[in-house]
This record gives sequence, structure tokens and C-alpha cells, in this order.
Amino acid sequence: MTFQVYDTTLRDGAQREGLSYSVVDKLAVARLLDELGVGFIEGGWPGAVPKDTEFFRRARTELDLRHAVLVAFGATRRAGVTVTDDQQVRGLLDAETPAVALVAKADLRHVERALRTTAEENLAMIRDTVTHLVAEGRRVFVDGEHFFDGYRHDPAYTASVVETALAAGAERFVLCDTNGGMLPSQVTAAVADLVARTGINPERFGMHAQNDTSCAVANTIAAVEAGVRHVQGTANGYGERPGNADIFAVVANLQLKLGMPVLPQGCLEQMVRVSHAIAEIANIAPDTHQAYVGAAAFAHKAGLHASAIKVDPVLYNHVDPSVVGNDMRILVTEMAGRASIELKSRELGLDLAGHPETLSRVTSRVKELEAGGWSFEAADASFELLVRSELPDAAPVRPFALESYRVQVEHREDGAVVSEATVKIRVRGERVIATAEGNGPVNALDEALRVGLGRHYPQLRDFELADYKVRILEGSHGTGAVTRVLVETADGRGGDWTTVGVHPNVVEASWHALVDALTYGLDRARV
Amino acid sequence: MTFQVYDTTLRDGAQREGLSYSVVDKLAVARLLDELGVGFIEGGWPGAVPKDTEFFRRARTELDLRHAVLVAFGATRRAGVTVTDDQQVRGLLDAETPAVALVAKADLRHVERALRTTAEENLAMIRDTVTHLVAEGRRVFVDGEHFFDGYRHDPAYTASVVETALAAGAERFVLCDTNGGMLPSQVTAAVADLVARTGINPERFGMHAQNDTSCAVANTIAAVEAGVRHVQGTANGYGERPGNADIFAVVANLQLKLGMPVLPQGCLEQMVRVSHAIAEIANIAPDTHQAYVGAAAFAHKAGLHASAIKVDPVLYNHVDPSVVGNDMRILVTEMAGRASIELKSRELGLDLAGHPETLSRVTSRVKELEAGGWSFEAADASFELLVRSELPDAAPVRPFALESYRVQVEHREDGAVVSEATVKIRVRGERVIATAEGNGPVNALDEALRVGLGRHYPQLRDFELADYKVRILEGSHGTGAVTRVLVETADGRGGDWTTVGVHPNVVEASWHALVDALTYGLDRARV
Repeated sequence: MTFQVYDTTLRDGAQREGLSYSVVDKLAVARLLDELGVGFIEGGWPGAVPKDTEFFRRARTELDLRHAVLVAFGATRRAGVTVTDDQQVRGLLDAETPAVALVAKADLRHVERALRTTAEENLAMIRDTVTHLVAEGRRVFVDGEHFFDGYRHDPAYTASVVETALAAGAERFVLCDTNGGMLPSQVTAAVADLVARTGINPERFGMHAQNDTSCAVANTIAAVEAGVRHVQGTANGYGERPGNADIFAVVANLQLKLGMPVLPQGCLEQMVRVSHAIAEIANIAPDTHQAYVGAAAFAHKAGLHASAIKVDPVLYNHVDPSVVGNDMRILVTEMAGRASIELKSRELGLDLAGHPETLSRVTSRVKELEAGGWSFEAADASFELLVRSELPDAAPVRPFALESYRVQVEHREDGAVVSEATVKIRVRGERVIATAEGNGPVNALDEALRVGLGRHYPQLRDFELADYKVRILEGSHGTGAVTRVLVETADGRGGDWTTVGVHPNVVEASWHALVDALTYGLDRARV
Repeated sequence: MTFQVYDTTLRDGAQREGLSYSVVDKLAVARLLDELGVGFIEGGWPGAVPKDTEFFRRARTELDLRHAVLVAFGATRRAGVTVTDDQQVRGLLDAETPAVALVAKADLRHVERALRTTAEENLAMIRDTVTHLVAEGRRVFVDGEHFFDGYRHDPAYTASVVETALAAGAERFVLCDTNGGMLPSQVTAAVADLVARTGINPERFGMHAQNDTSCAVANTIAAVEAGVRHVQGTANGYGERPGNADIFAVVANLQLKLGMPVLPQGCLEQMVRVSHAIAEIANIAPDTHQAYVGAAAFAHKAGLHASAIKVDPVLYNHVDPSVVGNDMRILVTEMAGRASIELKSRELGLDLAGHPETLSRVTSRVKELEAGGWSFEAADASFELLVRSELPDAAPVRPFALESYRVQVEHREDGAVVSEATVKIRVRGERVIATAEGNGPVNALDEALRVGLGRHYPQLRDFELADYKVRILEGSHGTGAVTRVLVETADGRGGDWTTVGVHPNVVEASWHALVDALTYGLDRARV
């Protein structure tokens, strides 16, 4: 039986708190998932959710899927209603998808207490709905809601739900850990027990895990190891409560750890791109520390073993980062030595191997700055400017020279809080004085600088302060305090970079980081 | 053999990109971990990292641990050096901790290529160092670095590393998945194979998992199911790359899913509080979707089954949220519940149980403030002021009323950076105008306020700004950004307290936190 990778980012994943896709968003996400090579895309609940009805309508003409089959999600017919009279079931057919997923209660307690019907009627609802949809030419998946809790409570009844669905013509029966409380060993045992009890080939089962024990990915893998050949997940693990199984980690583990080629060839290396693009659409900051696809997934604090990592990267990475479209990164830290700086520079496309003197200068400059509280670990752009300043051929162009600035914050008698900044700078030989207001002192300074530079550098308008972090550093009691500021800037086209500034005065520290941010961005735009 | 919960938040967890604790931070984290009831706290690498040396020095007088044993981390002696001559080993002894953890190479390839020594010398290094530390009265743990990769590559050699360490007197040998590439079934198989090969009781092994396959928690549980009786983890899973096993999920799974009471009684319900407080100290936004402890871990979108959830919460939650100190949430916006506010107030010595109306007022005020970005997780002093403001008998005395303030920062032509603030306030009926300079705008404001209040409140002189943290909240694109400031104040006699301020303007947010800090301190000094 073929292995099925089934994505439910657009249906179950959309249950995540605070997440809301437009129809256009959903179409864009579906295209990305298809590029990832998933076999099935569950698009939503047509008929029940107007936005989803619209999504399926537009999908017919606007989605040209290469790999994936579109699936409409819904429920079995209501209790006491003939299936052909059930509006909700009609909505599923009206979506005109090749496949339909039906949620069915697999826990007798939920049948009785939430559905308020009988054990027998629940089985009839499943049988009737599956039969009807199959007769209408649909491939049918049945999601056994609360399967694992139900199986623990009353294995005979839950097994009869599974048997009923498959006997009626469902292609696969999906074992859902709806409350997310399972551990891998319990999944293994439950699948084995179900197979022993029913004699059904486990390849006909699917696995749908939630992450409430932080084991969603592991539970999914455990099910596959127990013979299951259909896995459900969502991009970046989005979903209700702690979320669903992260489809990227599931697929990467299957391919790279268990040697199961579940995606079409060439698709695995799309993971990082697809993950980040979906995060953008969902308007959720990508998780830097996400397995396989996070920006820090293969980041190493260099220190002692930099030279060893350089020689044998394979000894320090569990897989080659490039196979999932990621990169190895070396972090410049407190323990920076020549080797890690050389490695880091190479990563940025600057080869210092042939310039031992430059490497020495950069290394001692970094050490000197780090002793003063600077940290380049999270500030690649500032680090690159620093290295390039030491390379005659690659020195960055400084867009202006500072004469002075002044920032003022007032809390007035009427309670209003106002910030204003004035900068005096020289830009391409011209003296410029610019003043601006902002919602804080740093924002005002940023605005004033942009006003001052704007005529010479119109591309500045696209740059946006995306994040701003402040930290008071050690030894910071009273007057000795040193402030470190990290500024993340976005260019509005998906690019972003981080710069750092350190000074006892938070405004001056911010100024350094802001100037580096604009210098780096303008320099990059120029190239 | 007793079960050991071993925390490495302060050592391996501190490898997380961008994370940097001060010594005061480390002491505060250690206190929180002790309140959680972990058995061991690995504090850092004394001798090698100056900050860690200082941490262990201060821990001797400033940490009064109820549950945990403090552990110093380090390496085995260098190749070719007598253990008594090894500076690094001496640094471990100088830390004067009851226990020491030694990292030892358990993968022959790393011995040869990174350590550049022989298989035999590596074993001798382990034997000598363990023997020496045991002779000096230390409990010794040995972390087998790259254990799983090493065992796959050369099981005989890796097994000899395990045997050598335990034979020399190590209390436990920790199986480290340093590169994080394991799956639970592979952990199960490796532990079983190691036990079969060496005949060693698996209770003498520990498990240290990294999250590179998104299976760190599951791998740790798998090891325990295979007989291991020592688990390592970090608060919130902080650590290098995708991080370490999240100690909260590990412990909750062991207690609630496997029925193993690994924490002292009454400790499990501290999890949410400890998790969020450590996140605040680390200056990392708490992960809303974290298993067990996330704000959304038990949040249900109130849809079809809202009433069913209310009647039968047990059918919709994998565990009772209160056992880990969490709440079930139905409404998306609802952050703080009555129960947790009552609990927290009681913790501060304010009993609201007999004042249901006050409790309601405080709860709705907290909800309102939290919706605006305030967070009281790490700001007990601000929370206490808020609660007491609602209690007629306990309302705090406000030391002054603000008329206006003004802060200015100038970067002058000569490069000097100067901050100056002026406050206009009413103190005990008197109008006071005071101006002061500072090394930054917030410091200048703080100084001006102290000058203005000094004549009436001389005890202010002892208060010191000990830490200052800033975070930009919610997306922060352009003008929508809200700034949250945490201020830690020390009274110079060992007491310290944390206050919070939130505003789009960082100076105004700081002002709120500063005023709370002085109000709380003066009020406490008065009592």
C-alpha cells in the first residue's frame, strides 16, 4: 500500500489560537504544500465554514496541484437523519474534491455524552456516510476522533468503529490522538493490539497526533514503525493547544532516519523555504529553534571545537543541513578564536584563509569588542561589516558621517508622552539637519535619520525595524552598566539582518545598531 | 536506585543562541529550579568560564537549596597531563560543589579527530579524573558525549568508555545524544544492546537528549522505559540548535503518564510559574504553545463543544491542567484565571479567598492589563502593589504624584554622550523640581526622581537598579509596537524585587517600572 503524507495545515492547523487565513492565504499555502510534495491537502470544512466553501470553489480553477490531492473535511451524517438529506454531507460533495475526510467519534463516551446518541447509531452514521460518498466517487478517509482514549476505555467498541468504516469502503482509518496525551510506547502497543484484535493490515491505518506531551512527532514515527502508512501533520506543527505533529520533522525523520522516501524526489530540500513562507503567510515569527528547518537548527557555538567542526562537519551534525535546504551556521561567541572567525567569515562569503594578517586583526578586534560587551552571535550583519572594514577590496560604503544628535522624551502635564529627535549629519558632502517624532526615543532617532538620508537613499523607505532587544550587561550595578541592543531590520522582500550596538547609554547603543543596520542594508542593495 | 531529575538549564541550556545570563540571573534560575524540586542543578563550568566561577562562589553563601544538589560541570583531564596537575580539574574542585559532572568522549572518531589522542589515553583520562574527584569526596556523573553515534560506529569501544567510568566510581553514566539525531525506537534498542553487552544495570545510566529530530522528550521517556533512572533536561527545552529535552514535559510525562513520582510532593504544580519566570529571566518570550506549561496548552477554541467541555472537561484534556499549575481556557483572550490570582496572592501573603469581590476586581484588572501586554509572571512587586491597591486595609502609600518629566540624550560634536532628566513632582504637599544626569535616559530619570524624593525619603539611597530588561511585544512592525520593561531593584541588604512597565515608549514604560520599584521598596521599608 502506498505511503500517504497528509497535510492538515489548512484545517486542523488553523485551530491554532490567533491564526486566521484569508482565502488567498489558503490558496498560497496549498501551493507551497504541493511544492513540498505532500500527497494530500486537507483544505477545510466546506458547507460549515463559508471561507472554506469559497476556498474549494476557487481551488477548482486557481490551484494547479502537481503532487497533492485536495481533501474536503467534514463529519458523518447527523443522528436520525438520512444521509442524502444531510446538508453538511451535501456540502462535502459540493466541494467537488477527489477525496473527503470524515470525522467519526471513536470513543463511546463522546458518542453518548457529546453526540448524545447510541453506540449503534454512531456506527450507522459512519457506515451510511462512507457508503454514500464512495458511491458518489469520492476517496474517503475516516478520522477516528479520540481513538486512543476510546480504545483504552472500551477497545471492543472502538475497534468496531474502525471495522465499520473500512468495511463501508473507507480507504484508510486514521487513529487520532485528539487530546494529545499519548506516549510513543503507548501508540506502539495500541496499534499492535488493534491489529491483533481486528486482523486488519496496519497499512490501512493513519496517524494523527497532537503535541500535548511534546511527543507528536515521535508518536507519528512510532505508528509508522508499527506498520501505519498514512501520517497527518501540519506545517510547523501549527494547531490547537500545543499543536499538531510538525509535518517537516515527521517527513525528514521518515526519509533521513528510517530511509523511507515518502516525498517525491527533490522535494525534501524545499522544507526550509516552505516552512518560512507559510510562517510569513500565517504571520507567526518562524521558530528559530525548530528541528530541521529553524535558522538555528544547525547553528554551533564554535569555541573550543571550531577547528574540529571545520575538518569534520559530519561529526557535529545529525544530518547534512543542505538535504533539507538548511545551512550550518557558526556562532561567534565569547570564546571566539581564529578558527571560528575564519569559519564564520567563509560562511558569509569572505575568505580570510589567504589573509592571515587580516584574520589576526579581525580576531583581536572581535575579542576587544566582546570584552566590552559586544556580541556578534546574533548579529551577523554587524560582524560582516566589521570583517569587511578590514578588507581593502570589500570595505562597505558608509552612507553618512555624524556631527551630532539630540533626542528628547517628554511626559507632559496632560499625560501625553512625546519623543522627538534631531540629527546633524553630512551626506555625500552636504550638511543635513533633520528632525522627527517617534513613539519612543529610538524610533524618533531612526525616523530623523531616515528623513536626513531619504533624499540620497530612497531605498531606505523599504527598510523596517522588525525587532529590537535590549539587555543590561553584567557588572551593571549603578553607573557601570553597559547596554547591548540588537536591531533586526527587514527589507520588505523577505530579507532581514541583525545588527548590534553596545554603550552605557541605551540611546547611543541603539544608534550604533541602527547605523550598522542602514549601512548594511544600503550596501547590500547597492551590490 | 533512586530516580534522578537532573537540570542543565544553566550549563547546556545556556548554549542557546542569543541567551546570556548574568550571575544574578543564574542564582535566580537556580532558586526557581529548586522550587520545582529537581534533584540536581548543573550550574556551569567553573574555571573555564569566569562568570560560572563567580556563580559557584556566590552560590556557597547565597543559595539555600531545599531539594537540589549543585553540580559543577567540566571535562576529564587533558591528554598527557597528570590529573593533579590539570588546571581545569582543579577549577572543578575549587567550586566546592557536592557533585561534579565530567564530559567524556564516547565516540572513538571524536577521540581521534577532535581530541587527537588515542583510544587508550581517553579511557585513562576518564579513569584518572573520576578516581581523583571521588577521592576528593565528590559524587561524579560522567556525560558520554556523542554516546549514541559512537555506539553505532564502534559499540565495543563506546561500551568500554561506559565500563571505565562506572568502574572508576562514577555514580551514573549519562548517555548523550549530542547531535540529537535519535528516534525513540533507536534509543530503546541502543540501551537494551548496551545492557546486554555490558551486563550493567540500566538504572546506572542517565539520558541526555537534544531535540534535532523533535523527539528529545520522547527519547528521554524511551530511555526511562528501558530502565534508565536519571534524566537530564533544561527549562523550556532551551539549548543549542533545536534545544534540549524540555524538563517540564519530561517530568510531567513521567509523573502523569507513567505514574513515576519523580518530583517531591507538591512540586509539580510549580511548573507553570517556574517555566514563565525562567523565560522572563532569560528574556525569551514564553512559548504559548509549549506542552503542559504554555498559556495555550489547555486552551480550547470555544466552538461546537463548549458546553460539553464545561460538563466533561476530563474528556477534552489529557490531564487536569491544575496538576501542573495551568488553567483550562475557553476564551482565546482570557489569560489569568481567578484561581491562579488567588493562588499567587496567597503566595504573597494576601488572602483573597474571603474577599470574592476584590478577587473579581483584581482578576479583571489583571486581564485588562495583560491584554495590553503587561505580564506579572516575573514582576511580583508590581503584582503585589496591584492587589493591595484593591484592599482598603493594605493599600500601599504612593510616595509622590507626577506633574511632568523630560529626558534628553545628546551625542555632541566632540563625541560625548550626555543624558539629562528633569522631573516635576508633588511630594507630601510640596512641589519639587529636580534635574540629574545619568549614563542613559532611564538612569537620568531614576536619578532625578531620587534627587526629588531624597529629602523626604532618605532610605532611597540604599536602593539600586540591579537589572533592566526590555522587550518589544507583538510583531512590533512600526507604530504598533509595545515595549515591556522589567526593573529589578536591590535594597543593598540582600533583598530584591522586580517591577514591570508597559508602554509604546520605552522611557514611559521604564518610568512605570521605576515608580513601582520605589513605591514597593519604600512601602516595605516602612512596614
